[in-house]
Amino acid sequence: MIRDATDADWPAIWPFMRRIVAAGETFSWDRDITEERARAAWMHRPPGRTVVAVDGSGRIVGTAETHPNHGGPAAHVANAGFMVDPDRGGRGIGRRLAEHVLREARADGYRAMQFNAVVETNTGAVALWRSLGFDVLATVPEAFDHPRHGPVGLHIMHRRL
Amino acid sequence: MIRDATDADWPAIWPFMRRIVAAGETFSWDRDITEERARAAWMHRPPGRTVVAVDGSGRIVGTAETHPNHGGPAAHVANAGFMVDPDRGGRGIGRRLAEHVLREARADGYRAMQFNAVVETNTGAVALWRSLGFDVLATVPEAFDHPRHGPVGLHIMHRRL
Repeated sequence: MIRDATDADWPAIWPFMRRIVAAGETFSWDRDITEERARAAWMHRPPGRTVVAVDGSGRIVGTAETHPNHGGPAAHVANAGFMVDPDRGGRGIGRRLAEHVLREARADGYRAMQFNAVVETNTGAVALWRSLGFDVLATVPEAFDHPRHGPVGLHIMHRRL
Repeated sequence: MIRDATDADWPAIWPFMRRIVAAGETFSWDRDITEERARAAWMHRPPGRTVVAVDGSGRIVGTAETHPNHGGPAAHVANAGFMVDPDRGGRGIGRRLAEHVLREARADGYRAMQFNAVVETNTGAVALWRSLGFDVLATVPEAFDHPRHGPVGLHIMHRRL
C-alpha cells in the first residue's frame, strides 16, 4: 500500500535512507548527511509530497518524494526521488511507488517529470524509468564518483505526463 | 572589478534581482519570491560563493553565485547563477563575472560546471555560455512558460574545467 507520509513515519524511513546514502552508489547527497538535513530534504510540505510504501504487516519498506524541479515559470515540471529498503529490494516496491507518484503528479497538474541525477551504473533504476516511459535526455559525463566504478555519468531522464 | 560579496552588498543587489525575477523571462524562481528567500538562495556560505561586479564609481552592477550542483559523490560539478542589472546590460559585465567564476571554480577543485535551466529564448546568455566553452547537453522541452513566447525549452549546459 502507498499512502501519504506523516511525521510519525520518519523514524522508520531514516535507517534505510541512511544506509542508501552512506553507500554512495545511487544518491547525490553527502554520504554522512545529518538526520536533520535528510529529513528537511525529504519530508515535504505542499506543493511537495512525500509518500511511503507499507507492507502487509504495516512496516515501511520504501518512500518517495515529489516537488517542482524548478520554481516560477518552470514549476510545471516535477522532480521525484525514491528509496526502497535494501532488505526489501527486487519485489516491485520501486515500481509501485513510481506508478503512484506519476499518477499523483499528473493529478497535481505537472506536465512532465524530470530526474536530474540517475547514476548510469544504477541499471535497475534506469531500466525501471525507461519501462515507465522516461527517456535519457542527456548524460552528464563523469559527474558522479562511484566508490567502485570511479567517475560515471549522471543521466537526466524525462517524460511528459 | 569583481569581488566577494558581503552582507552589506545585499541591499544593492535585491532591487535589480527583484526586477529580473519578476519579469519571468530568464529565471526559474517564483516571480514574487520574497526578499528573505532570494537572499537565502543567493548569498552563500562555503562551499558556495557569491561575488559582485562593481563599476568605477563603486556601484554594484551584477552578481554571481557558485555552489555544488549536487552533493556527496557529485559535488565536483559546480552550478552557477548570474544576474546583471538590466540598466547596465550589454557592457560585458556578464562575461567578466563568468570568467571570474570559471577561474574560481577551477581553483576550488570543481571538475566541470553545469547550468540546469538556461531559457532557450535567452539568446544572449546562450551565446555567452557557448563562447565560454559550454555545450548544450540537452534541452528539456517546454519546461519554461515564457510570458511572451509561451512554453519554451530549458537548456542544460555543461563544460569541463
